[in-house]
Amino acid sequence: MLINCSTYQNGRKHGDIAITEISDYVSRPDTLVWVALVDPTPEELDPMTGEFGLHPLAVEDARKGHQRPKIEEYDDSLFAVLLAVEAVPGKTDGEFVVGEVDIFAGPNYVLTIRPGTMQGFADVRERCGREPELLIHGSGYVLYAVMDAVVDRYFPILDDLESSLERTESRLFDGSSTRSRIEELYALKRRLMTLKHAVAPLMESVGKLYGGRVPHLCVGTQEYYRDVYDHLTRINGTIESIREMHATAITVNIALISLSESEVTKRLAAWGALITVPTLIAGIYGMNFAHIPELHWALGYPYALALMTAVDLVLYWRFRRAKWV
Amino acid sequence: MLINCSTYQNGRKHGDIAITEISDYVSRPDTLVWVALVDPTPEELDPMTGEFGLHPLAVEDARKGHQRPKIEEYDDSLFAVLLAVEAVPGKTDGEFVVGEVDIFAGPNYVLTIRPGTMQGFADVRERCGREPELLIHGSGYVLYAVMDAVVDRYFPILDDLESSLERTESRLFDGSSTRSRIEELYALKRRLMTLKHAVAPLMESVGKLYGGRVPHLCVGTQEYYRDVYDHLTRINGTIESIREMHATAITVNIALISLSESEVTKRLAAWGALITVPTLIAGIYGMNFAHIPELHWALGYPYALALMTAVDLVLYWRFRRAKWV
Amino acid sequence: MLINCSTYQNGRKHGDIAITEISDYVSRPDTLVWVALVDPTPEELDPMTGEFGLHPLAVEDARKGHQRPKIEEYDDSLFAVLLAVEAVPGKTDGEFVVGEVDIFAGPNYVLTIRPGTMQGFADVRERCGREPELLIHGSGYVLYAVMDAVVDRYFPILDDLESSLERTESRLFDGSSTRSRIEELYALKRRLMTLKHAVAPLMESVGKLYGGRVPHLCVGTQEYYRDVYDHLTRINGTIESIREMHATAITVNIALISLSESEVTKRLAAWGALITVPTLIAGIYGMNFAHIPELHWALGYPYALALMTAVDLVLYWRFRRAKWV
Amino acid sequence: MLINCSTYQNGRKHGDIAITEISDYVSRPDTLVWVALVDPTPEELDPMTGEFGLHPLAVEDARKGHQRPKIEEYDDSLFAVLLAVEAVPGKTDGEFVVGEVDIFAGPNYVLTIRPGTMQGFADVRERCGREPELLIHGSGYVLYAVMDAVVDRYFPILDDLESSLERTESRLFDGSSTRSRIEELYALKRRLMTLKHAVAPLMESVGKLYGGRVPHLCVGTQEYYRDVYDHLTRINGTIESIREMHATAITVNIALISLSESEVTKRLAAWGALITVPTLIAGIYGMNFAHIPELHWALGYPYALALMTAVDLVLYWRFRRAKWV
Amino acid sequence: MLINCSTYQNGRKHGDIAITEISDYVSRPDTLVWVALVDPTPEELDPMTGEFGLHPLAVEDARKGHQRPKIEEYDDSLFAVLLAVEAVPGKTDGEFVVGEVDIFAGPNYVLTIRPGTMQGFADVRERCGREPELLIHGSGYVLYAVMDAVVDRYFPILDDLESSLERTESRLFDGSSTRSRIEELYALKRRLMTLKHAVAPLMESVGKLYGGRVPHLCVGTQEYYRDVYDHLTRINGTIESIREMHATAITVNIALISLSESEVTKRLAAWGALITVPTLIAGIYGMNFAHIPELHWALGYPYALALMTAVDLVLYWRFRRAKWV
Repeated sequence: MLINCSTYQNGRKHGDIAITEISDYVSRPDTLVWVALVDPTPEELDPMTGEFGLHPLAVEDARKGHQRPKIEEYDDSLFAVLLAVEAVPGKTDGEFVVGEVDIFAGPNYVLTIRPGTMQGFADVRERCGREPELLIHGSGYVLYAVMDAVVDRYFPILDDLESSLERTESRLFDGSSTRSRIEELYALKRRLMTLKHAVAPLMESVGKLYGGRVPHLCVGTQEYYRDVYDHLTRINGTIESIREMHATAITVNIALISLSESEVTKRLAAWGALITVPTLIAGIYGMNFAHIPELHWALGYPYALALMTAVDLVLYWRFRRAKWV
Repeated sequence: MLINCSTYQNGRKHGDIAITEISDYVSRPDTLVWVALVDPTPEELDPMTGEFGLHPLAVEDARKGHQRPKIEEYDDSLFAVLLAVEAVPGKTDGEFVVGEVDIFAGPNYVLTIRPGTMQGFADVRERCGREPELLIHGSGYVLYAVMDAVVDRYFPILDDLESSLERTESRLFDGSSTRSRIEELYALKRRLMTLKHAVAPLMESVGKLYGGRVPHLCVGTQEYYRDVYDHLTRINGTIESIREMHATAITVNIALISLSESEVTKRLAAWGALITVPTLIAGIYGMNFAHIPELHWALGYPYALALMTAVDLVLYWRFRRAKWV
Repeated sequence: MLINCSTYQNGRKHGDIAITEISDYVSRPDTLVWVALVDPTPEELDPMTGEFGLHPLAVEDARKGHQRPKIEEYDDSLFAVLLAVEAVPGKTDGEFVVGEVDIFAGPNYVLTIRPGTMQGFADVRERCGREPELLIHGSGYVLYAVMDAVVDRYFPILDDLESSLERTESRLFDGSSTRSRIEELYALKRRLMTLKHAVAPLMESVGKLYGGRVPHLCVGTQEYYRDVYDHLTRINGTIESIREMHATAITVNIALISLSESEVTKRLAAWGALITVPTLIAGIYGMNFAHIPELHWALGYPYALALMTAVDLVLYWRFRRAKWV
Repeated sequence: MLINCSTYQNGRKHGDIAITEISDYVSRPDTLVWVALVDPTPEELDPMTGEFGLHPLAVEDARKGHQRPKIEEYDDSLFAVLLAVEAVPGKTDGEFVVGEVDIFAGPNYVLTIRPGTMQGFADVRERCGREPELLIHGSGYVLYAVMDAVVDRYFPILDDLESSLERTESRLFDGSSTRSRIEELYALKRRLMTLKHAVAPLMESVGKLYGGRVPHLCVGTQEYYRDVYDHLTRINGTIESIREMHATAITVNIALISLSESEVTKRLAAWGALITVPTLIAGIYGMNFAHIPELHWALGYPYALALMTAVDLVLYWRFRRAKWV
Repeated sequence: MLINCSTYQNGRKHGDIAITEISDYVSRPDTLVWVALVDPTPEELDPMTGEFGLHPLAVEDARKGHQRPKIEEYDDSLFAVLLAVEAVPGKTDGEFVVGEVDIFAGPNYVLTIRPGTMQGFADVRERCGREPELLIHGSGYVLYAVMDAVVDRYFPILDDLESSLERTESRLFDGSSTRSRIEELYALKRRLMTLKHAVAPLMESVGKLYGGRVPHLCVGTQEYYRDVYDHLTRINGTIESIREMHATAITVNIALISLSESEVTKRLAAWGALITVPTLIAGIYGMNFAHIPELHWALGYPYALALMTAVDLVLYWRFRRAKWV
């Protein structure tokens, strides 16, 4: 579905055009054609290939989807695949879905395609409209702006992950519902890996858009790409931290389970003793010896019960002191 | 066994030839000789060595088999070893076998050998026939096409691995048949390592076929090799993800086993208490004291049974509340 | 809040100036303007942007805070983000808080901003005043001096971490309060990761300020930056050591918990035997056979009690020897 | 002990010479002197130092032994230390011993020394005799041939390791003799580390003998060194695979031990219940109440025994269904 | 405290001089001044700074101590910090202390300082005196000789670590004193980390003293530095091996603890059954049914005891066969 098809001249918006007019504009100097598609059908995608002269391998990737984040150079144009990570609306447990954003950027065109990504880039188009002094850098700046928007949307997801870990941590030592804690830790790991999958390869690719030799498209906007790289580094660093704390949390969890098992064993043994010791006493006075003096005491029975109680009290006091019950 | 021996001229198929004619064609300009052998005997392999001037070390590798994936440059020719991973037909548990594909590619010849690989490359030959504008790049493009076919066949295997992991994961928390889950996890790891063994060294080798200095054969088809590299990177990234989730799954499994042991211990102790406490009461009324008033009550016996039941009901209720039974 | 705004000429302090005078001084040769702000409002920060010509991306980072340590080059100026780690005053358990220090350093100005950092840099200003022969290197030296001060403040925090680990270690083998030991180890890991977060990215950045090609600002003070780098390497090495010992400590802790559980099981079983064996004897003499000779012995009852005691003494002695009780 | 001292001219064997003649031959062009010593005494080693002009540091290394594999360049000569790994003859459990092979290779001499290595290089000398067209490359080829022989002898050792792992794996899930399995896994790890110790440093060193700038000695035989490197990479890859599977095997083993402990606990508890429940019934009918109707039934006793048996049968059936017994 | 202050000319010792004479000699060509201090007071260190023109940052490091091993270049001089590892005399459990050795080496002077290191370098001075043909290389050779001595002293420490590990390993499977074994493993890890701390950073630094661009001081003695590097690589390799075996040993230890716990549980349950089964029989014959035929048998009591014994013998035989007792 076509979302937008506009032209810009010298950094300022010129107007919306029809798809069939693209070829007129794309060859003019100082003109930028910006097309945005969402979940395009092959029929929508095909004319673009011709208009912009897209490389067949890149088009095939966009068509097939499920790519890994990457930025590839084809002659004077770039093909970028980003993963858009979006919280599932109405869910509060930090679940998210992963969509894809494909960007074709040539000397004077930008084509963005969003298969399976909900949130659009209207805000990016608006921001670009407000900054003609930057948009004059052309498609390199637009590519940056879209990338920056996608990366900025990782931060709330990352915050969710951090607070999930913190929530699990804070419940780690209160001893309740161990099983659900393990399930949480496992789910957290899954989400962490998914986010890492979106961030790490992109970071590697963006690292090549500033510094030494950069694609011609990015010349003049390198500081902006460094800024994106810096954001990605920050996210990646936090992911690594969460990952390491997560591993420690799981190990600590195992230690706590072992420990609580050990404590339960001790507690059960203590209560067991409080039952079996009186049973022994009862057994003794249940023996059938002809001459057991106590059996004939007037207060023999109360004495036996008192003995049982007394022994149990002593044992209870000692177990209590040893923190076994 | 000889599968195919064709010549191509300027990207178009010229015809099938006999092995003895190879030397006539291989020296003509703009001609490509493409020979495909499967499980060749030394007698079939030997003439090739002479016709194409293959390097003895490469021939020895092809003869011995059981190589690691690699791409080696010998003067102006390349020798590539790929591992073909093929699902065992008729098995649904994701088992696969590993075969080998050896490719000798020189300026105007390509020789593919498949020792122990079931699936052939008829589809690759057909594809090449359909793309004369690409086949004009010569043996560099054929090498790419075969490589691409082999790598594409990794994807279903990888999907199998992913769904194996997901299946095991989903059963991780339902508590059933822990032992078979551990066996599954172990088998999964083995398959994962085998696939990694096929992918990682190849990725490293393919990475040298595009970018800076590349073998002369690959000039002009570098974007295609980058595409193969990209596929391999994607597969490798997924393998690493599965590997990490797998490690977490095993650790989580250990935690769950400890936990379930702890729960079993508690449950058993609870049931134990429900037996031993009445036993104590029975023991008390089995004592032989001369004066135990209850023994002479008319309803002494029902009272004792009722006492036992009452105590057990109280205990049961408390254990229930503590989720011990 | 403005803390300080001074000018230096040829390494010697010239005087304090008003913010509005900055533009007069910043363009004079051999003059250095040094401004220090703490928790600045946007109104305080904005004029700086203009006076010193700060890059918008750097200003945005300073404004938003919560950055990762980094040193970025913008044309002839540097933007450095450091994390200041400060012990919580009045706490003795090694807790610390993390603040931020942002430094803008241009050819003849330095602007330091401390959002959320308690301790100031009065000592750095004083030190610089005492070393005119070094201050003559200009803003490169001031940047070093601030960095050096921030890094020096990591050492007491690191010592705290080391002694925390040692304290936990020394209690690892005395068997007491396992649970609190696990909590300590977890908290220690958290602090360790936080410190690493402050140190590792900074180390990477500082490594680019000496050696081969360095920013123009740092020329002449490279040996000082190498010294900072060396300190950071030392801190990082110690963090890595603590990290590895920490991992071993957790594993050892799990082993000790398992072991102590095993010992408790044995001890409980031993005491259990000391109760159940006499119970069996009591059971035997509680049988109702018509002819049990012992029951009619005059000393039958004392004999039974003696038998129970004797068996228990033998058992106790054997368990003692096996170190079970 | 001197094993061999021969001269070669233009790739063909010229004859055996006495040690004292070495200096006559070593200076002739197109001549190669090849000396092989085994466990040499200092008296045997000393003259070599002079004849060939060996570097004192290299000689000291050869004299002291217990080196790490390495290849060092001294001016126009190379000093290589290899570790020879040899199966202990008559042992079938995969044990092996590690010997050392030192090789001094100069422009026209090769000196091999075998301290503590059983198997000699007669086969290498024979092979070199059969390939004069390769031996013409001189000492660079001889060095390759010895190295190739040493590396080829790693393969059966590696196969032993792989089958050891597979044997242990296949016994992992059959539940028998856990303790010996752990001992096997530990011994396997030790052997693995020893082999890695021999392979990894050598691989690193051989990697410098082909490709960009190589020692003068190896020019012309680089493809052969690449072949050795390729073998080492293959061995190293397999070692890494075994290492990872080994780690998984140990973890899985711990899980299985925990699991089997859990199963034993359940089984014991089940059998315990089958004993304690009848004991409770016996206790009840052992009470001394004046009025317990059952006691006076004619079939009271059989009834009690039947009750016990019935309860146990029910329990047994339930435990059986729950797979506890 | 001044230990030694000598001058050397053209590789031969010239004589001992007073500290005040240093400035006379240090400027003469072909002269080397070698000063050795141990635990110097600031008063002893200060004149050196002036005489040799030491860099203030290096002097500060030497003064403060507790550095990480490193080799820093200051113009044409080097500052090296080494860690001296020395066995605690009179201790046989492999404990060692870590001292520091600081070396300032300039074009014609060497200053060694030993804060907290017991063993001196008299043997190094003696060795240098015996090798004038090497000492002629000047301070570069002296620096090497000291470094070589320090590194050589790591080997016995490393051997101690290896035999500690082997001792612990050999006791791993004999089942005795698990707790002390864990303590040993922990202490071993600590010592390992300390040694690694001394070796790894030094290795990195020494790696820059040979090969491509080296400090001017080391030109001509590069092969010697490569030899030191090679020793460090060997030590580091062994440390890594010990580290990995150590990790395996700890994991195996946990497996063995779990396993022995499982065995203890089974053994206890077996003995428990041998007690509770006769108790059940006793309970049955303790029932008060009016008609229990056995109770009236003449040999009823011996029969009951025999029954108990028989049942226990059968159980014991079965448990024995199952290796439970």
